[in-house]
Amino acid sequence: MTARIAVDLLGGDHAPAVVVDGALRAFQDDPSLHLILVGPHDAADAVLAAVEPAQRDRVGTLPMPAVELHPDDAARASLRAVADGLADAVVSAGNTAAIVVSSARALGRWPAVRRPPLAAVLPTAAGRLVLLDVGSAVDPDEHTLITHARLGAAYAAVAHGVTEPRVGLLTIGTERGKGDRLRRAVPQLFAETDLPAGARYAGLVEGHDVVTGTAADVVVTDGFTGNILLKGLETAYARLGPPGGDPAAVPPRAALLLGVAGTVVVCHGAASGGDLADGIAFAARMHRRSAVAAMADLIPHNEVTP
Amino acid sequence: MTARIAVDLLGGDHAPAVVVDGALRAFQDDPSLHLILVGPHDAADAVLAAVEPAQRDRVGTLPMPAVELHPDDAARASLRAVADGLADAVVSAGNTAAIVVSSARALGRWPAVRRPPLAAVLPTAAGRLVLLDVGSAVDPDEHTLITHARLGAAYAAVAHGVTEPRVGLLTIGTERGKGDRLRRAVPQLFAETDLPAGARYAGLVEGHDVVTGTAADVVVTDGFTGNILLKGLETAYARLGPPGGDPAAVPPRAALLLGVAGTVVVCHGAASGGDLADGIAFAARMHRRSAVAAMADLIPHNEVTP
Repeated sequence: MTARIAVDLLGGDHAPAVVVDGALRAFQDDPSLHLILVGPHDAADAVLAAVEPAQRDRVGTLPMPAVELHPDDAARASLRAVADGLADAVVSAGNTAAIVVSSARALGRWPAVRRPPLAAVLPTAAGRLVLLDVGSAVDPDEHTLITHARLGAAYAAVAHGVTEPRVGLLTIGTERGKGDRLRRAVPQLFAETDLPAGARYAGLVEGHDVVTGTAADVVVTDGFTGNILLKGLETAYARLGPPGGDPAAVPPRAALLLGVAGTVVVCHGAASGGDLADGIAFAARMHRRSAVAAMADLIPHNEVTP
Repeated sequence: MTARIAVDLLGGDHAPAVVVDGALRAFQDDPSLHLILVGPHDAADAVLAAVEPAQRDRVGTLPMPAVELHPDDAARASLRAVADGLADAVVSAGNTAAIVVSSARALGRWPAVRRPPLAAVLPTAAGRLVLLDVGSAVDPDEHTLITHARLGAAYAAVAHGVTEPRVGLLTIGTERGKGDRLRRAVPQLFAETDLPAGARYAGLVEGHDVVTGTAADVVVTDGFTGNILLKGLETAYARLGPPGGDPAAVPPRAALLLGVAGTVVVCHGAASGGDLADGIAFAARMHRRSAVAAMADLIPHNEVTP
C-alpha cells in the first residue's frame, strides 16, 4: 500500500543533511513509499540525485525559496500538504512547539484536546509502553492529563493491539498525598472518567515502572517530565541496549502527535539519519493501518468531555 | 575512624527485614562502624543475635514500644540521636517528606534553605554526576532551585573533588523560550548568583546529559522530575549496567540531604538489603570526611541570600 510521506527538510539540528540521509534510507527500504520533499530545492535535489530514474515518480517536491525562509516554514508547508490531500503523513525533526501548533491549525484538533500530546513508545522487558506527553504540554492542568490518558489508551489499543490497556499516572510515590500539586488532583478525575478501548486506570506509577513495563501499558505525565525521562532512558538504551534485550524490537525514536486529524510524526531535534528513516517508516506504518481514524473511532466525539 | 550510624529500623517498604539485613552487611564490612538501631526491640534483637559477642560494643539500640508506633517515629528518633550527639549520621528508607521535615526540625536548616534537597549521585561515562533535587521539593519556586544549585555545587566539590563544578539546569530544549514556566524564570537568576567552590552555570541541559555527563557535574531540577528520572535511570542501570562500564564504580542508590546541619542519608522505600548497606557505608564515608562541615564552609552564611 502506497504511503506518501511529507518530509520537512529543514527540521532538526543537522538539517538538511541528516534529513536527506534519512529520507533516502527510508525510500530504499520500502518500495511502496513515496516522498514529498518540502523545503529548499537544493536539499530536495540531493535526494533526487541519489534516486534511480525508474523510481523518480516516487519522489515529489514542494520547493520553497531559500530566501527569508524560517526553519518552521517547511514544517508548516508539510502539514498543509497533508491537509490538502497531497500527502498521507508528515515527518519532522523541527521545533516541537511550532509543529504542535501548526498541526492543530492545519489539520484540526479533536474535541476536548487543548494541547495535542506527543506519544513516545519505549521498549520494556514486558513489551512496548506508551509514554505521553513527551514535550508538547509542558504546563498542563489535570483535565489535560485526563484527555491525554484517553488518547494514550486509544493509541496502545490501535498501535500495539493491547486489549484493556492499563493506564498509569506517573508520580513519585504510590502512597496517598505523594506527588506535586498537579498529580494530587488527577486520581479523583480518573475515577470519574471513562477510558476508551476497555482501558482501566492502573493507579500511580513511578520512574522504575517505565523501565519494567509491568505496572502499565500507558504512562501519563506532563510534557516536561516526559521529555526529560524519555531523553534519559533513550540515551541509556542507546548505550547499553534495550531492557527487552532484542535491539530489533526497539521502537522508533520518534513520537506520534495524538488528538489531531492527521498523521504527524516528530523526531528529536538531534535525530540521526537512521532515526529519521525510522520515523518515516513509522509514519508509513501508522498511515497504512489507518491508526488515526481507528483512534478517532475509539474516542467518539460525543463521549469526550469538552 | 569510628562512625556511629543511627539506622531507622522501620523505614522502607520491606522494613524491618531488609534494614536488619543491610545493617548487618554494613557492620561486617567495616570494623570501625558502630550501629545505633532505632525501632522495635525485636528487630534490633535480630541484629544483635547475629553479632559476635566480641563485637557487641559496636551495636547500640534505642528501643521503641511497638504499640502505637507510627512508621515515621523511628526516623524522628534517629534524627534526635544525631541532634543529641549520640550518633554521627542517620540512614533511613522511610517516607521522604517526613524525613526532610524532621531533619530540618531536629538538626536545623542552613540560612536560605527553605526545603532541604535530596542529592543523588549517578554514574555516567564521564564520571559521577550530582542530580538534585530527587524527591524533597516537588513544587519549588525559582529561588529554591538557585539555592539547590549552590548546595549541589558545594556537594560536588566536597564529595567528588570537582574543581569549578559545572552546574546545569535540567529542561527540555536549549533554545531560548523552551521549558515550562518555572524553568524559563531560572536562567536570569543564575546570572545574578555567585556559586560556591568556583562553580559556574553551565546553562540548560537535557535528559540525555544526565546519562552522558559531558555537559555538567551538577544537574538541578525540581524534586518531582528528579525523582522520576532517577528511578528510571537507576532501574535501567540495574538491568543493563552502568554507562561508565564499571559496576564497582556505581554510586550508592541513596541520596544525601543537603542544607541541614547533620548527615542524613535517604534510601529508596523499595531499597534492598544491599542498598541499605551501601547507604550506611555512604553515611559513614560522608561523616568521616566531615562532608557537611566542609560544605557549610563553602557556603558562608552571610553570602547566602535569605
